[in-house]
Amino acid sequence: MTTYRARLSLSLLIATLLTGLNTQAQTPAPAIPDAIASDPIRLGWMVGSPPPPDKIINFASGNFYSFPRFRWSFSHTRQLGPTTQVARGTGAISVLPKAERKDLDSVSFKVLGSDKTLTWGEAFNTNYTDGVVVLHKGKIVYEKYAGALTAEGQHVAHSVTKSFFGTIGQMLVADGTLNENALVAEYVPELKDTGFGNATVRQVLDMTTGIQYSENYADPKAEVWEHIRAGGVLPRPPGYAGPKSFYEFLQTVKAQGAHGEAFAYKTVNSDALGWIIARATGKSVGDNLTERIWRKLGAEQDAFFSVDSVGTEFAGGGLNTGLRDLARFGEMMRLNGKFNGQQIIPEAVVADIRKGANKDHFAKAGYKNLPGASYRNMWWVLHNEHGAYAARGVHGQTVYIDPKADMVIARYASYPQAANAFNDPTSLPAFDALAKHFIAHP
Amino acid sequence: MTTYRARLSLSLLIATLLTGLNTQAQTPAPAIPDAIASDPIRLGWMVGSPPPPDKIINFASGNFYSFPRFRWSFSHTRQLGPTTQVARGTGAISVLPKAERKDLDSVSFKVLGSDKTLTWGEAFNTNYTDGVVVLHKGKIVYEKYAGALTAEGQHVAHSVTKSFFGTIGQMLVADGTLNENALVAEYVPELKDTGFGNATVRQVLDMTTGIQYSENYADPKAEVWEHIRAGGVLPRPPGYAGPKSFYEFLQTVKAQGAHGEAFAYKTVNSDALGWIIARATGKSVGDNLTERIWRKLGAEQDAFFSVDSVGTEFAGGGLNTGLRDLARFGEMMRLNGKFNGQQIIPEAVVADIRKGANKDHFAKAGYKNLPGASYRNMWWVLHNEHGAYAARGVHGQTVYIDPKADMVIARYASYPQAANAFNDPTSLPAFDALAKHFIAHP
Repeated sequence: MTTYRARLSLSLLIATLLTGLNTQAQTPAPAIPDAIASDPIRLGWMVGSPPPPDKIINFASGNFYSFPRFRWSFSHTRQLGPTTQVARGTGAISVLPKAERKDLDSVSFKVLGSDKTLTWGEAFNTNYTDGVVVLHKGKIVYEKYAGALTAEGQHVAHSVTKSFFGTIGQMLVADGTLNENALVAEYVPELKDTGFGNATVRQVLDMTTGIQYSENYADPKAEVWEHIRAGGVLPRPPGYAGPKSFYEFLQTVKAQGAHGEAFAYKTVNSDALGWIIARATGKSVGDNLTERIWRKLGAEQDAFFSVDSVGTEFAGGGLNTGLRDLARFGEMMRLNGKFNGQQIIPEAVVADIRKGANKDHFAKAGYKNLPGASYRNMWWVLHNEHGAYAARGVHGQTVYIDPKADMVIARYASYPQAANAFNDPTSLPAFDALAKHFIAHP
Repeated sequence: MTTYRARLSLSLLIATLLTGLNTQAQTPAPAIPDAIASDPIRLGWMVGSPPPPDKIINFASGNFYSFPRFRWSFSHTRQLGPTTQVARGTGAISVLPKAERKDLDSVSFKVLGSDKTLTWGEAFNTNYTDGVVVLHKGKIVYEKYAGALTAEGQHVAHSVTKSFFGTIGQMLVADGTLNENALVAEYVPELKDTGFGNATVRQVLDMTTGIQYSENYADPKAEVWEHIRAGGVLPRPPGYAGPKSFYEFLQTVKAQGAHGEAFAYKTVNSDALGWIIARATGKSVGDNLTERIWRKLGAEQDAFFSVDSVGTEFAGGGLNTGLRDLARFGEMMRLNGKFNGQQIIPEAVVADIRKGANKDHFAKAGYKNLPGASYRNMWWVLHNEHGAYAARGVHGQTVYIDPKADMVIARYASYPQAANAFNDPTSLPAFDALAKHFIAHP
């Protein structure tokens, strides 16, 4: 644990230095290895029988969640702890035709908040991309992997996970299983005396709950760390006496501020939603995902979840998938829920997501890279002229859907800093440039 | 741990009472629930959000490896600890045509060592079957699931795993990567001063090494338990100071008796073989399985391994697969290595397995249910008039190949007792009866 905490502290220190909040620092921050220098294959993690001691990554040592090791870990979540299956089912694989386009690598864009220009090809390494699949009109026009990820491998989706359950949550609202105006406590009485007790399902779905929970990854005391430790996804220090499951943690969440007045990104909302979904359907969130979406996509692979000791999947960030399957999910959304020969999600559910939520509520959260956006059913709605919307997870995970450009981008990455504020300047304009390129050169 | 040990002790006590070694016992053994009464769905393990405390199964409590809980656990290995992926690859699924035969359920057979008669249909529950797939001439003629297993799920193969690595070992002998007459220490110097040091690769492949290692599951002090605890597949007691990985355990194995004179079933040989394979190929046993076999089968699903903290897959028993994929593997063997449009395993390798090994060496091990058999490349060769051979794992796991009857049976089970001596009387004659039925009614 000492090593783990030391490494994590170093990693957080680096992150803090780079936020720009600490520009007065006298000592320059150590340079962070770039994508090539931090390549997990090049660094030889877990190679050898056995690997040399300094190349071993595992859960017990706690060394798996530090840069550059997590460039290996994000593609090997199942090797770090218990997981549950999200079955592909027994059907045939849905075909994603290949139609590679060589012209994309030279598409250029201006980095947000800078005069610098990059190309799509250059941005791959700038963003520490582990894999990216671009679909245009349903065909794979670009597919590239690096680091520890391959087409047949699986990568953690982090908070992209949330959008799956926001979507399922809205499906349950649409079919009447959930009342979006009902209080959380109506579905989960155990949450009655917590900060969630008198929030509505809608407020949870759109993350406008008033609860005491910090998602500041640069602060080791932020509640997000306690949350993840409770679920056993991060190791616990010796003598740990905190909550021992996701549900136990949820019951410790306190109120802070009013509900329904501002968007505030707090992962714990997704796990509360997971509990609501589990109670309303009588099935685990993993089974819900399997039955309502995954089995119907014609996925190439099973997906899987990190799971706690009582069998609760980490609805806030524990999904792992193959990248092409993540692209299939995005394509299904682009096609308004219809994919692989069936209406998987009602068209009205996709429409409700695309419509977005209250922009003023969103503006209060101060995301400078996302002006005019909103957050609806755990999706980030850009409200740009293309009607783009996205699922987003720390370290650069994303599904980016641009309806006007008939484009879906699925990307897995292992960017050194957690918050997407770090990679947005070289990601969001790249996605938009590609979209405009497709419209200009169909 | 106390609960775990208590439960395990009870389970072992029951097993011991039922071996017949303890027929003088004054207290009758408690009745073991039958397949219906012990059905894991009926018992509601891990159902609820969260499940009631007495329905929770997990690794930390150690309660997962006791009957009837393991009827759930065997289909949820990934939820009990770290695993590695055996990728299906990105290709299409190989089609196993369905041609259901309703006549099989009434095929009857005489129970070994008894006058009792059972039918194939009755034997399903008698053997605590979780799933069985029968292929005749490459078509699925029978497929049935029960308990916690479904067609899209995955089940532990236990020692069926060994036959995959015996096969790969023989492939490496055939292509000259391994010298079957070389000493183990030549490939793994760390084993030089252990019981394996002066054994040959062939002796490991055929399990005729002279080493101190008990596989008596009814003895809590048998080395097999220490072996599995070292790999972290079973929990370790507080203050545990033993070996902490499969490789560390292998280095503790002592010599006992001569090599090459008798077959003695000792799982540790398979892990020694795994180490040899890893060193000879520079790749993990999991990667070997993925690249040499799994990716080529057109499998429906990824398979996966239980893995220790330094990344070593449990070659002696840690593979988990979908049942149809296990049947695909069997069918590939029946077709002398050719399946899914390619020669996956050289014909000569299959021939070497089918030829078997020294029957006198085998006879010394005293398997009364397997008279005249032998053990070659980690396969059980029956030397019956059909040329049948099998991969076999504790609690009833099997791939049974009957070349003369063009039949392959893949079965996963959760029989209360570990040793197959308990289920062989209602399994082996059932397989043979089915084979004869196919010949009589093609």
